[in-house]
Amino acid sequence: MTDSRDATPTGGPVSPSTSVLRPLGPDEVRLVGGFWAEKQELNATTIINHCLTWMERIGWIGNFDRAADGSVAQHHDGIEFVDSEVYKLVEAMAWELGRTPNPVLERTYGSLVARIAAAQEPDGYLHTSFGRAGQAPRFSNLEWGHELYCFGHLFQAAVARVRTGHDDLIVDVARRLADLVYVEFGPGGRDAICGHPEIEPALAELGRALSEPRYLELARIFIERRGRKRLKTTLFQSSEYFLDDIPVRDADVLRGHAVRAEYLAAGAVDVATEFGDVGLLDAVKRQWANTLNGRTYLTGGVGSHHQNEEFGSDFELPADRAYAETCAAIGSVMLSWRLLLQTGEAKYADLIERTLLNAVLVSPREDGQAFYYSNTLHQRTLGSIPAENELSERAEASLRAPWFEVSCCPTNVARTLASVASYFATTTTAGVQIHQFGDLDIATSVNGSPVRVEVRTSGYPFDGHVSVTVDARDEIELAIRVPSWAEGADASVGGEKLVVDGGYVRCRRVFDPNEPLLLDLPMTPRLTYPDARIDALRGTAAVERGPLVLCVESTDLPGDAQVDAVRLNGAGATKTALGASVSVEIATPLAAAWPYNATRSADAASETVVELRPYFQWANRGPSTMRVFIPLAGD
Amino acid sequence: MTDSRDATPTGGPVSPSTSVLRPLGPDEVRLVGGFWAEKQELNATTIINHCLTWMERIGWIGNFDRAADGSVAQHHDGIEFVDSEVYKLVEAMAWELGRTPNPVLERTYGSLVARIAAAQEPDGYLHTSFGRAGQAPRFSNLEWGHELYCFGHLFQAAVARVRTGHDDLIVDVARRLADLVYVEFGPGGRDAICGHPEIEPALAELGRALSEPRYLELARIFIERRGRKRLKTTLFQSSEYFLDDIPVRDADVLRGHAVRAEYLAAGAVDVATEFGDVGLLDAVKRQWANTLNGRTYLTGGVGSHHQNEEFGSDFELPADRAYAETCAAIGSVMLSWRLLLQTGEAKYADLIERTLLNAVLVSPREDGQAFYYSNTLHQRTLGSIPAENELSERAEASLRAPWFEVSCCPTNVARTLASVASYFATTTTAGVQIHQFGDLDIATSVNGSPVRVEVRTSGYPFDGHVSVTVDARDEIELAIRVPSWAEGADASVGGEKLVVDGGYVRCRRVFDPNEPLLLDLPMTPRLTYPDARIDALRGTAAVERGPLVLCVESTDLPGDAQVDAVRLNGAGATKTALGASVSVEIATPLAAAWPYNATRSADAASETVVELRPYFQWANRGPSTMRVFIPLAGD
Repeated sequence: MTDSRDATPTGGPVSPSTSVLRPLGPDEVRLVGGFWAEKQELNATTIINHCLTWMERIGWIGNFDRAADGSVAQHHDGIEFVDSEVYKLVEAMAWELGRTPNPVLERTYGSLVARIAAAQEPDGYLHTSFGRAGQAPRFSNLEWGHELYCFGHLFQAAVARVRTGHDDLIVDVARRLADLVYVEFGPGGRDAICGHPEIEPALAELGRALSEPRYLELARIFIERRGRKRLKTTLFQSSEYFLDDIPVRDADVLRGHAVRAEYLAAGAVDVATEFGDVGLLDAVKRQWANTLNGRTYLTGGVGSHHQNEEFGSDFELPADRAYAETCAAIGSVMLSWRLLLQTGEAKYADLIERTLLNAVLVSPREDGQAFYYSNTLHQRTLGSIPAENELSERAEASLRAPWFEVSCCPTNVARTLASVASYFATTTTAGVQIHQFGDLDIATSVNGSPVRVEVRTSGYPFDGHVSVTVDARDEIELAIRVPSWAEGADASVGGEKLVVDGGYVRCRRVFDPNEPLLLDLPMTPRLTYPDARIDALRGTAAVERGPLVLCVESTDLPGDAQVDAVRLNGAGATKTALGASVSVEIATPLAAAWPYNATRSADAASETVVELRPYFQWANRGPSTMRVFIPLAGD
Repeated sequence: MTDSRDATPTGGPVSPSTSVLRPLGPDEVRLVGGFWAEKQELNATTIINHCLTWMERIGWIGNFDRAADGSVAQHHDGIEFVDSEVYKLVEAMAWELGRTPNPVLERTYGSLVARIAAAQEPDGYLHTSFGRAGQAPRFSNLEWGHELYCFGHLFQAAVARVRTGHDDLIVDVARRLADLVYVEFGPGGRDAICGHPEIEPALAELGRALSEPRYLELARIFIERRGRKRLKTTLFQSSEYFLDDIPVRDADVLRGHAVRAEYLAAGAVDVATEFGDVGLLDAVKRQWANTLNGRTYLTGGVGSHHQNEEFGSDFELPADRAYAETCAAIGSVMLSWRLLLQTGEAKYADLIERTLLNAVLVSPREDGQAFYYSNTLHQRTLGSIPAENELSERAEASLRAPWFEVSCCPTNVARTLASVASYFATTTTAGVQIHQFGDLDIATSVNGSPVRVEVRTSGYPFDGHVSVTVDARDEIELAIRVPSWAEGADASVGGEKLVVDGGYVRCRRVFDPNEPLLLDLPMTPRLTYPDARIDALRGTAAVERGPLVLCVESTDLPGDAQVDAVRLNGAGATKTALGASVSVEIATPLAAAWPYNATRSADAASETVVELRPYFQWANRGPSTMRVFIPLAGD
């Protein structure tokens, strides 16, 4: 069924033809224990199966069977982009199979790919919602049809298969479809783009993976076509929503629909890289910096408008209306990773860590069977518990839901967790770079010479002790990122202190495998104050601890107090096992008929100590109220 | 053309069969000068014509001609509820004609009504978007078709005609249509409701105006049918959006789409009144109070979500994302007025004043030729100037626009201004009550005996001196509202001090027409602090002056400073002609790559004095930034 031929994997999801840092393939880097390996195990044993079970039950996979047997126009389940969810699951399975061979999963995977392939039409077209009698014609609704978007996720699934050492059925399917798209939309074809970017980075990567310049060229064309206001707008969705307002290279900041913006920017980096387009790369770097400066939540989450799932204006970052879609956070990681590879600058790795640990990991429930789609930073009322067997709305004030009517996030989490080791380390001709912390085995080569690196932590991200052992014959440089939050970090080899330079400690030598580089990252909780321009956060502080953003959850408050009664005393915070304990006042708001008064309200308050816990873990203990930014007492 | 027969007007837009306070008809109360008369004059000379010209030009009125000649299914301009805009204009014209006879306007009005009437079908049905070959069938899309909503505005236009002394063509049209609706949706008819409430208060008022119990009964039925989750929801619009989540009498607060919520609540008061349903009336009073307490902006505006134009959660009142739709403010006035009539409680009149002067009057531009649809309380970037001849989006970051794709607000402003005198005074068997301040002539009767009252102000709302003269043969009670903001107000008659009791000064006597009641309302600017639970406003204060909310506008700042640099020194405010001067710091935000810091930002700042001006006047001097709530220096 899965007619595997050998392919030589290079890199993970992203493998540019030229870069400052070389990404490692799944055969070169593995998470072998600890926090991240547990998350990958949860993904392997639970999340992937959860996605498969749901999509079988509600007919999203069945759409492909009905497309194959000719009945899908009469009976199609779900909205017009559910194909993409199946593709993201196929991608997740491919990465997972590359991580850990598993005959049962291999059979499931092969069967699923065969059902997809059976739905492909003779000319290569493949979408379950378009083109048949009784359906809208192909490419008749580029604004909202998500056809090219779905194709993009199919291409990324194929890339995962190639990068894990196979060139088999899904790759054939992707190749035939991409060839059709090239004819339809390439030079001399339709002068058009998709409402939802995604095919741009996907085509670039498929082109890289299959050494097919036409796909790269088409990615370039799609990027260049953007910004001409050709996509038809609606009462609610402007050209900005579609990122069709101005050319990519002319924009100063990410805007519009957050997921679309991140995916498009990622594709623009790919195109800039492959075509040596320095101007385009600089434009995306500028957009990244301005987005970080004014449009990013403390968690790394992006997109503050529920309306259209859009970015807000600069400094418009309300905690209680944070949309901060899980997929937008994943898109942000995709973008930062591409920029890290192109620049080697630690700030991109800093944002990846912040985003993965806080804005992405908050999505799955601890048991892996429910997810957040949007991720508020302030829950004012006790959330409801979603029905176990019904599709949930995506922005409900509820606990995590098993599945959504639009369910892009669970499968996006699955493919990200399955390939997350890719983001931890890189090589150059000089040596090895460690960007993220986890229990990691690296087996690669530097300048043709084999190098093994073992990274071990004593409980990261909760504990800051990191030990790195290098086994290499020749002298190499080991670079380890020291996060920007880790002021006072201590690094040494054999008693020799190392200094931080440009966000990394660097040590060049012939390493003794028995003498690890030791890094000690401070885990003392620290108060973080928002910029005065963020109106929604004035007079508050958050508490961070290592790479984790903490939060106060009503579950940890005395009695039936809710988080909006809590005022943080500025006296500092004390480390606990997972979070921090802080002194707070619990205020009793004065009753009033009109919430605007001639005097500043002076609520009665009692002092107590409460524990703040990691934000990503919130709402795992039943309905609660929660906030990340806590009003300061006395303000 | 306008086949006028005499009808006896009682009351303005609202005339309940029973109430604590009796509303006055257009023949009983007139604004004769000053601020409000100027607004009515602007409406008469400019706004009404502006609406007429636009709707002729873009074919919304032409829809009726094409409906009459059978071509509208082939060519219909605008979305499916543009009929309602024409009806609101007809209503505005009727009130205006009742205020000031004008042969030119009377001809224009008659011609417009005739074109509408010509489109009515033989069975009484009247809608330009439904029911013909090539159109969707009648009542086939109750969620989104807005058919009954449009009918409601036609009914209100007919009520305006009846209440200004006519029973002519528009009234006939309305009667025939209402009869059809009764058959279609009344007892034994379709068990259904409209997605957008409006027909409920309109049917109730038409029933009152025409003494037709079937219309009142149908209003009752529509109110009672709500809350059964029968309207089909979408990915984005829940049952709460439609106010179909729970029965009206079970709700504790207004929620969902703000305009729909206010209109529905107004209709519920009407039904509760006519059917003696104390439980229903109490439910709406409770909803009003809870909405005031947690879901109302300082301006009286409501609806903090752009997403779905909805109410937010309690205390979710961000200034920069205030949607605060003009129509929702008008709906709030409609509701408060009904509750004032039923209770006589000053708090309802307080909210009417706040809302009219700040949340409604901010909509029209000073010249009456452009409007805000949504009304932010914080403009962060310089708005753009909308195209003069194009339809604008409703929530753009722009200055006021001439017309919108959805253009409910301009015509709503027009009908409100034309009938605004209705909200100023009432009578009881004991006497006369003055609820709002303006230069007002009242000629009515109390217990069958004629009473004349003259209210004169020396420039209200900018100045607080009010003089009230009563000319009546018998002893009567004069009650004058003392606004809740007017602490220290001074009231006297002939040197005798009067005390405030329940929000009114009351004086019972045989009045001497040469001895006015004098009221002096303090106009000293006052700082107003938001409740600590409004996160978005923490650490800020607003300045109010009399009934007006002030704002700082960049136009009034030195150099090219923008409002986000302004910090208010708490030292108080000094009265200026229209606003207040305050001492502020102008801060220069520190540049930073990441807006969350280990220390609270200490921006460099310079002190200066700036003038704050009335919020409702903002953005009349070109693009500017603006904020109502100003961060406090030193916080």
